[in-house]
Amino acid sequence: MLIALDAMGGDHAPAETVAGAVQAVREFGLEVALVGPPDVLEAELARHGPRPAAIRVVGANETIGMDEAPAQAVRQKRDASINAAMRLVKKGEAAAVVSAGNTGAVMASALFVLGRVGDIERPALGALFPATERRGVLMLDVGANADCKPSYLAQFARMGSLFVERLFGVSEPCIGLLNIGEEEEKGNELAQEAYRLLERSGLNFVGNVEGKDIATGQVDVAVMDGFTGNIALKMGEGVASLMLSEMRSAISSRLRYRLAALVLRPALRAVRKRLDYAEYGGAPLLGVNGVVIIAHGRSDATAVKNALRAAGEVAASGIVEAMAEAFKR
Amino acid sequence: MLIALDAMGGDHAPAETVAGAVQAVREFGLEVALVGPPDVLEAELARHGPRPAAIRVVGANETIGMDEAPAQAVRQKRDASINAAMRLVKKGEAAAVVSAGNTGAVMASALFVLGRVGDIERPALGALFPATERRGVLMLDVGANADCKPSYLAQFARMGSLFVERLFGVSEPCIGLLNIGEEEEKGNELAQEAYRLLERSGLNFVGNVEGKDIATGQVDVAVMDGFTGNIALKMGEGVASLMLSEMRSAISSRLRYRLAALVLRPALRAVRKRLDYAEYGGAPLLGVNGVVIIAHGRSDATAVKNALRAAGEVAASGIVEAMAEAFKR
Repeated sequence: MLIALDAMGGDHAPAETVAGAVQAVREFGLEVALVGPPDVLEAELARHGPRPAAIRVVGANETIGMDEAPAQAVRQKRDASINAAMRLVKKGEAAAVVSAGNTGAVMASALFVLGRVGDIERPALGALFPATERRGVLMLDVGANADCKPSYLAQFARMGSLFVERLFGVSEPCIGLLNIGEEEEKGNELAQEAYRLLERSGLNFVGNVEGKDIATGQVDVAVMDGFTGNIALKMGEGVASLMLSEMRSAISSRLRYRLAALVLRPALRAVRKRLDYAEYGGAPLLGVNGVVIIAHGRSDATAVKNALRAAGEVAASGIVEAMAEAFKR
Repeated sequence: MLIALDAMGGDHAPAETVAGAVQAVREFGLEVALVGPPDVLEAELARHGPRPAAIRVVGANETIGMDEAPAQAVRQKRDASINAAMRLVKKGEAAAVVSAGNTGAVMASALFVLGRVGDIERPALGALFPATERRGVLMLDVGANADCKPSYLAQFARMGSLFVERLFGVSEPCIGLLNIGEEEEKGNELAQEAYRLLERSGLNFVGNVEGKDIATGQVDVAVMDGFTGNIALKMGEGVASLMLSEMRSAISSRLRYRLAALVLRPALRAVRKRLDYAEYGGAPLLGVNGVVIIAHGRSDATAVKNALRAAGEVAASGIVEAMAEAFKR
């Protein structure tokens, strides 16, 4: 299975994207198309020894920066690496696209090149929150749509339900609405109206959930507008980092703590690893005509590798075909 | 200084509220008026030995449950403990109110009995996020207003700035707008319009901030609508609890980890304590004519004690008088 990697996307591209691709083909037996300026990518590849047969370079000579207006940049720079990667999927040559680049540009390019599935009003960005060891909570939308209508949230719930069913084999996934209280009448106007739509959606809607319910894995899917979801996700990341750094400074304050911490290191590392975004392999963009995985802008090689693996799994699940069926006009 | 405590408010009232009051008068030299049914409160007080002279009981025979419609309940139950507590402030007998009861009812009662300050459109609930050891970030609104207009957010910023200046002696506090990216054009319509108002507010507005910037204490005040703020706060709490419980289970998995953890216990406890809501003493309700501190519904005696201390500090700061001056019509 060939995955198209936007090799120029992300804060540490192309060094970490190319390194991640090399790891992914070695560890998971994937094929990767590195999309970007051939000379740059060939030079980067050369640093990893003999080139793996499963890696190819697909030329694209423009890139979109983090500060460019996404929709405009995607239209103007036809030969941007993200557009070229999407075209590989559009033509059926690649099974999925992975990018750690400007999120807005990835979404714009996906809409521009691949288009939406059936009657989907707005694609949504999903993120798997690692609540318990065995299951994560799929949060969506975590940033594709800052302003949402209630009907968008109802569609996000349907897409999320289908995704969790296909990817994790959960039948009738539990769907929650992220809100500020458990009672039906809680929340802003958007949440109140979305609640009513979800109640009669035919999905396994279990009502409102709060941040703590996501952290403890009370539902399989939590729906929300992209503004709220993005903030909730980043607040969670911020608190996790804060706790780890507090812990580090508390431990380094005395010699006996530092010694005890040496013994505990494997246990603490396991905790950090479970909560580390790099282990999770990026966020699927649901509702577009193809598999698109958006990795964290700060992705290192491990994060890129895991995003490639996730892309392969999502493509193999047949979710895009299932969505096309479920949302056909 | 006399603080009125809604002794019947909260999941663990009246046992923990009364215990917290007893601790507060002993440790901080405050006076506390316990408001609620006298027989119940006297019986509870009797469990703490000789009654401290600084505690008095003020009778109120109705209570408002967590599941009642707040505005209605507050109007119908004139003799509810929260209303009686507010009246003590209104009459100038008490300097502040503390309640761990139904947040909606506390806000409704504050508006009903005390009213708003000057031309404040909507009161806001503030929460101090413990970002660094020396300073917290005042987040507001964290739940008083699920739907906001841009002008509310501009007022929240002014109230927050004044609060941080008065309480913590910070001059020209840094104000950030909680948003989903740093650039000016990011966010939903509300955030975009609020950005423009904040830019010409005359405050020390430093632009957009994300969840991670709150966690690392990049600003003194972060403003947001009450829906987003409540969710961000609870997501942060949820992630903090998740990490602590992950750590506990990782540690208990092997004997040598358990032994090392014994040595580390004081360090880990310091981390937990710094991130524990119970240490922070509740959330100030800003914009009403009096000092009102809303404590967590799950408050134990320590949390109640710290909320009483916070109420004393806020009252002593003269913030309500300063707000009346700043927001006079």
